[in-house]
Amino acid sequence: MKSLPRTIEWIGDTGGHLRLLDQTLLPTQLAFRDCRTVEEVWEAIRTLRVRGAPAIGVAAAFGVVVGAQANADFAKMKEAAHYLRTSRPTAVNLFWALERMERHGEKTWPSRDWLRGLLDEARRIQDEDAAMCRAIGQNGASLIQPGQGVLTHCNAGSLATAEYGTALAVLYTAAKQGKQFHVFADETRPLLQGARLTAWELRQADIDVTLICDSMAAQVMREGKVQLVIVGADRIAANGDTANKIGTYGVAVLAKAHGIPFYVAAPSSTFDLSIKTGKDIPIEQRDAREITHLLETPIAPHGVRVYNPAFDVTPAELIAGIITERGVIQPVNERAIAACGLA
Amino acid sequence: MKSLPRTIEWIGDTGGHLRLLDQTLLPTQLAFRDCRTVEEVWEAIRTLRVRGAPAIGVAAAFGVVVGAQANADFAKMKEAAHYLRTSRPTAVNLFWALERMERHGEKTWPSRDWLRGLLDEARRIQDEDAAMCRAIGQNGASLIQPGQGVLTHCNAGSLATAEYGTALAVLYTAAKQGKQFHVFADETRPLLQGARLTAWELRQADIDVTLICDSMAAQVMREGKVQLVIVGADRIAANGDTANKIGTYGVAVLAKAHGIPFYVAAPSSTFDLSIKTGKDIPIEQRDAREITHLLETPIAPHGVRVYNPAFDVTPAELIAGIITERGVIQPVNERAIAACGLA
Repeated sequence: MKSLPRTIEWIGDTGGHLRLLDQTLLPTQLAFRDCRTVEEVWEAIRTLRVRGAPAIGVAAAFGVVVGAQANADFAKMKEAAHYLRTSRPTAVNLFWALERMERHGEKTWPSRDWLRGLLDEARRIQDEDAAMCRAIGQNGASLIQPGQGVLTHCNAGSLATAEYGTALAVLYTAAKQGKQFHVFADETRPLLQGARLTAWELRQADIDVTLICDSMAAQVMREGKVQLVIVGADRIAANGDTANKIGTYGVAVLAKAHGIPFYVAAPSSTFDLSIKTGKDIPIEQRDAREITHLLETPIAPHGVRVYNPAFDVTPAELIAGIITERGVIQPVNERAIAACGLA
Repeated sequence: MKSLPRTIEWIGDTGGHLRLLDQTLLPTQLAFRDCRTVEEVWEAIRTLRVRGAPAIGVAAAFGVVVGAQANADFAKMKEAAHYLRTSRPTAVNLFWALERMERHGEKTWPSRDWLRGLLDEARRIQDEDAAMCRAIGQNGASLIQPGQGVLTHCNAGSLATAEYGTALAVLYTAAKQGKQFHVFADETRPLLQGARLTAWELRQADIDVTLICDSMAAQVMREGKVQLVIVGADRIAANGDTANKIGTYGVAVLAKAHGIPFYVAAPSSTFDLSIKTGKDIPIEQRDAREITHLLETPIAPHGVRVYNPAFDVTPAELIAGIITERGVIQPVNERAIAACGLA
């Protein structure tokens, strides 16, 4: 497997800055974006230059360092954490990473190497995420049988994490184990993360992938081409209800109707045990233009009303298992999740 | 309700030509295309300038006149019918209309007003389609209760027929009866007939419509916003299995999972009683570029493999009823369909 470009990188030392692979330009351009202010980090998260729940968490952690940087300022650190919280509402990893950075900053303030400590904490978040991804891959790879078709929705890959991915980590690990299988990537409207990102990174990694429109998943299942579904997650409630990219819930219903097991792959930081069920997960509503325009060109009548939820919630009963860095939670329910001691 | 522009029109007399509303340019341009050769008619059907099963039938009928026109030539008529058969494989109305035109041409050859008779037959096909659409609207309107949400997929409207539509005829008739209801239009990837055509024509007719991505239908159903699904059809087998735009089958599965009745609206000419079940309906595979490019701009990695079936088949057991010009077939099975005496 070829290695993929790093999605998120801290350039230099405490005086350095955050460099992000600009995912809005893929697959036609491989370009990076340097963020030297908190506003630039916020904008990058908001406009999905960096996206994917774990990657958002890592980018935000470095964003706190960017904020605290000038004069190693405690108040600026708090301000940065507060501001970055408003960038996107659904992925819990964002809040988790910001809290962890704040906690670290508070605990160590004041100290001579306070800023360095903060940078080290952000780097730990990044390294831990990478390690979690590899562990998820290890824990999930046995689910894939040679010759199977695996369907995925959106991008839960290297681009969505510090590296390697969550759902796609399972595929990468299975491929490294020498298993042959075939992937169907839903294009994932409106922002086409499946077409632009998943198809791109699987091809970079020489994994056999076929791109389909979201509306074709049912037909591909009916034709017996899919034996397994694996997706990522943006937030998982205490009972296992899982928020993920819009369209995921539909795929889960279709998988059930066709007797195909549906798995979620996510690190611990995606669980939000303060939330009992999926009903309490806030769902981001995004701009109508994401649907009515493509690359600035109108594809719908001017002024048409649009409904554009960025996520949906798949109820726990449709999920065969949740693949985490600690193992596979199966069956998915409150007791099994509590027993993992994620908190 | 405002009247919509005519999708298909014969301009002039026996020396005239076929004028089509070019649906590939909607909703940003309202432009017409004049077809003076059989090749131009074939191209218009093939590239979806005219689309929708009933509209394809009507356009092809006029295409036979275009072919026979020079010197009122019998062999040319046969040639035109033969050639137009190859334009698209799934919608049965195409074959039905071409057979009817050929039969008429054979029966009346030679005669002084042979070409005029052929043109009259094509006009009859068009007029009968318009009448069937109105009857479908009348027969289906009682299914809509005030305040309901109705979901539709692709475009089975005025643009897909001689006028008024099939699935949308039901909505237009209900609106004329003074019922208030709300429509969710799936955008219908890859070619966005829902976004470009359905949302456009419903807005023209002042019907309350919200555009969603195909992947959002499940969520909209889960939120209780949809009480009824109505779609059109490209071919219906003797047992009620229904081929329609790709994504329809998925919507039917989702509707069932949410306890929402799923109806098909189609004229008699859409039934193909020579085919026992949906398994025997040929499914057109279209060009990968429809998925990988949008308006000539790449939205997927270069060279990625794509699966692009233009249609899927919804099994009869997922269909609550088929609304035809003769009444509503309910339940949907071979016996009930045979009892209609559709031919």
